[in-house]
Amino acid sequence: MGAVDLNADLGEGFGIWELGDDAAMLDVVSSANLACGFHAGNPARLAQVCAAAANRAVSIGAQVSYQDLSGFGRRFIDVEPDELTADIIYQIGALQALARAAGTSVRYVKPHGALYNSIVTHQEQARAVARAVHAVDPELPVLGMSGSAFFAEARELGLRTVAEVFADRAYRPDGRLVSRREPGAVLHDSAEIAERIISMVRTGRVIAIDGSSIAADVESICVHGDSPDAVQIAHAVRGRLVGEGIDVSAFV
Amino acid sequence: MGAVDLNADLGEGFGIWELGDDAAMLDVVSSANLACGFHAGNPARLAQVCAAAANRAVSIGAQVSYQDLSGFGRRFIDVEPDELTADIIYQIGALQALARAAGTSVRYVKPHGALYNSIVTHQEQARAVARAVHAVDPELPVLGMSGSAFFAEARELGLRTVAEVFADRAYRPDGRLVSRREPGAVLHDSAEIAERIISMVRTGRVIAIDGSSIAADVESICVHGDSPDAVQIAHAVRGRLVGEGIDVSAFV
Amino acid sequence: MGAVDLNADLGEGFGIWELGDDAAMLDVVSSANLACGFHAGNPARLAQVCAAAANRAVSIGAQVSYQDLSGFGRRFIDVEPDELTADIIYQIGALQALARAAGTSVRYVKPHGALYNSIVTHQEQARAVARAVHAVDPELPVLGMSGSAFFAEARELGLRTVAEVFADRAYRPDGRLVSRREPGAVLHDSAEIAERIISMVRTGRVIAIDGSSIAADVESICVHGDSPDAVQIAHAVRGRLVGEGIDVSAFV
Amino acid sequence: MGAVDLNADLGEGFGIWELGDDAAMLDVVSSANLACGFHAGNPARLAQVCAAAANRAVSIGAQVSYQDLSGFGRRFIDVEPDELTADIIYQIGALQALARAAGTSVRYVKPHGALYNSIVTHQEQARAVARAVHAVDPELPVLGMSGSAFFAEARELGLRTVAEVFADRAYRPDGRLVSRREPGAVLHDSAEIAERIISMVRTGRVIAIDGSSIAADVESICVHGDSPDAVQIAHAVRGRLVGEGIDVSAFV
Repeated sequence: MGAVDLNADLGEGFGIWELGDDAAMLDVVSSANLACGFHAGNPARLAQVCAAAANRAVSIGAQVSYQDLSGFGRRFIDVEPDELTADIIYQIGALQALARAAGTSVRYVKPHGALYNSIVTHQEQARAVARAVHAVDPELPVLGMSGSAFFAEARELGLRTVAEVFADRAYRPDGRLVSRREPGAVLHDSAEIAERIISMVRTGRVIAIDGSSIAADVESICVHGDSPDAVQIAHAVRGRLVGEGIDVSAFV
Repeated sequence: MGAVDLNADLGEGFGIWELGDDAAMLDVVSSANLACGFHAGNPARLAQVCAAAANRAVSIGAQVSYQDLSGFGRRFIDVEPDELTADIIYQIGALQALARAAGTSVRYVKPHGALYNSIVTHQEQARAVARAVHAVDPELPVLGMSGSAFFAEARELGLRTVAEVFADRAYRPDGRLVSRREPGAVLHDSAEIAERIISMVRTGRVIAIDGSSIAADVESICVHGDSPDAVQIAHAVRGRLVGEGIDVSAFV
Repeated sequence: MGAVDLNADLGEGFGIWELGDDAAMLDVVSSANLACGFHAGNPARLAQVCAAAANRAVSIGAQVSYQDLSGFGRRFIDVEPDELTADIIYQIGALQALARAAGTSVRYVKPHGALYNSIVTHQEQARAVARAVHAVDPELPVLGMSGSAFFAEARELGLRTVAEVFADRAYRPDGRLVSRREPGAVLHDSAEIAERIISMVRTGRVIAIDGSSIAADVESICVHGDSPDAVQIAHAVRGRLVGEGIDVSAFV
Repeated sequence: MGAVDLNADLGEGFGIWELGDDAAMLDVVSSANLACGFHAGNPARLAQVCAAAANRAVSIGAQVSYQDLSGFGRRFIDVEPDELTADIIYQIGALQALARAAGTSVRYVKPHGALYNSIVTHQEQARAVARAVHAVDPELPVLGMSGSAFFAEARELGLRTVAEVFADRAYRPDGRLVSRREPGAVLHDSAEIAERIISMVRTGRVIAIDGSSIAADVESICVHGDSPDAVQIAHAVRGRLVGEGIDVSAFV
């Protein structure tokens, strides 16, 4: 019946501050996008999450970001491409060392927040991020949005691209996400979300918010874990997938 | 006539701010201790210095620090050992990736500033730093002060320790440095400094400030490059060494 | 039956990260020690808490700290006195402007975390903090620990000192707190805590952990609000005080 | 013969890092735009520059910025207006307290770098900055670019706006600056710059890069001091003004 990856953002506390339930989510996902200190994630916390991920054989990805702790990486920053490339290399390397110290390794890279969004279309920053990944290790896949400038740049450099869909977000007919500011942008019913995911995985298509059906690469499903509800939804999604005979396993 | 390493702290600007003349110093030293972003050194700058070091076949070390940009890593911070270990792993890894992207690698680790000083005697922090280096790569040597708690902890983990002396600092009879607050602590005459270094390398002994002679491991000589004078002194030291038939070459 | 102040640390989230329930605690306390951005508290959050405090006529204090977001101000930093003075002035001023914009003002200063603890005995840093408060406004009282070096320095400059006791902490016979690492250091039973507070306010004495009775100035009681339990305890303390006819009101 | 203000950006070092020669520039300018810690300027440094400005009766302005030390405030950040307002209030207040402690006060506000540029046209951020200034003190003038969205928003709130011209920059016929990326954007000859300034002050007109003449409010002239050349140019400008009988004095 095939297999699919479940990914979530983890390690997103900072110092004393917690965000989400990393331990609970590590029991759900096959891939953990770990913050790298630029938008969240102090080193001691990341060391612990790396160890916990290694224990559960969860695949670790570097969730790289603009440098913006107070904005949680959610604000576009007009960084020069060369600086962005160096910032991304720095973050991946930092997490690689922490992962290695925990007996595991960084297996992929996923941009975070405003960077994720901006490089859907921002060519220069997209190239800067792709170059950073390639410079660190040309074998590292990138996780992101199908059809993005980032994926085009990544492929040009020979990087493997892995497309994800969002379990709890509505899609526009053009394959982009409905903005969070619009009604119906975020789904909350766990049964509906699970149903929708099964359909996506089975058919390779998403029903957009206007009812139209669009093609969707579904190599990985992004679930959220930053609230008790979110953890429950993630569990429901995983339960349905397994119940349907679809294997949940890392893409790398 | 043997050989000795010359090391200096480089990459210690931050963003727009410069400190010292990295390019000039890369022509003098055999080993460059590069800041890792915690006390100085933004990623784009470090990427450039890594490339320049690679071009000149200068060996790169990770100069790890407390997290303290506004204090330039010169203030003791009472960090918990586990946090310190993770902070150090993070820094080494970040620089490793930047070095790798520049076609070179991090070959050793040297603590910076207040961390350097505190782990001469602070057992727990000394062990925390040694553990970090060992966790990243047990083959990485550490550069530091002979007789320090740090060296004892590093050796216990099987790490290679490389002892350095300071070209321009006066020593106490117990082998420690005379505090900068005391008269005569810092030497300024480049001929005198060069002479002193030749004597140290030749005899394996330092003349302390009270005139007594003390044994000194001289595997590496630390020179400073943060002022025009300092660059000139470093050149003078190198010139004398080469003139005496002593090879200046990296210890690793 | 007299009156006493209840104070708590608020505004201690940062960006996306929450800590404690500021709104709930503002209904309990008469004085809110607001973080000033150095250990916690981004400006937008502080602006909101200032406005909420103004609405409830809760007195605002500047909770000043070492600059240490990743350690939440809980790690001693060996800052030079002049730098510390400037850091504290900066923090108080920043909060003053936010408070003024919310139609209220900063009425006192309380050191946070490791700074609070270090200036119980660290003369130079104690003087540096006292000088900062005095430089900003010699009419600003300081809230802290009776018998501390900080209070001695503050009084020497003519500052008013306001002594606080901790509702949920055990005391040593010398009037200092039992270290959190020792058994019995933190009290958890809200009825017991409330009872203890009533006794302190009534008698001006604390029963130390060894059963001895020690004199205690009780101008303010510090309660915690960083867990649901803590909020409930704070409510219980306030309820008992009011029930006993003791007025809960700000000291300034 | 009238009078004009000379302003420059000062206090723009950070910790160990220097930028420009603050002491030399304080002998030239009548108004000093002091960094407030967000793009540059640690508190201890700012305390010193405030004291030095007070000694020379130089007027102090708060040079407010996006929070971006590693980018020196030169990168646009897409901050939410409410967050930006709070960030600006925080910065002004911090500098006010440092100025007060030095026996002087903050007399005006000038946005820095990318923020300066973005609020020429970015309505929401322009309003956010104007609101911040107004919230701190409606009597504080703002220094900036004539015809900007920022000035429109500031005036709507009743703030006094003070227009500046740049001594060493070429202007487009529409009154905006020629981009630094284009040839001729920056003038380097101190005699030519001084001549140009005299003409601007006398005629209230600027000769644009295409030779056309455009009206220019010249209440203040911005000079740079971040290089030995710049300091010399600033001196030349001041010398010519004084020689022509034009008084150099603060606008507030």
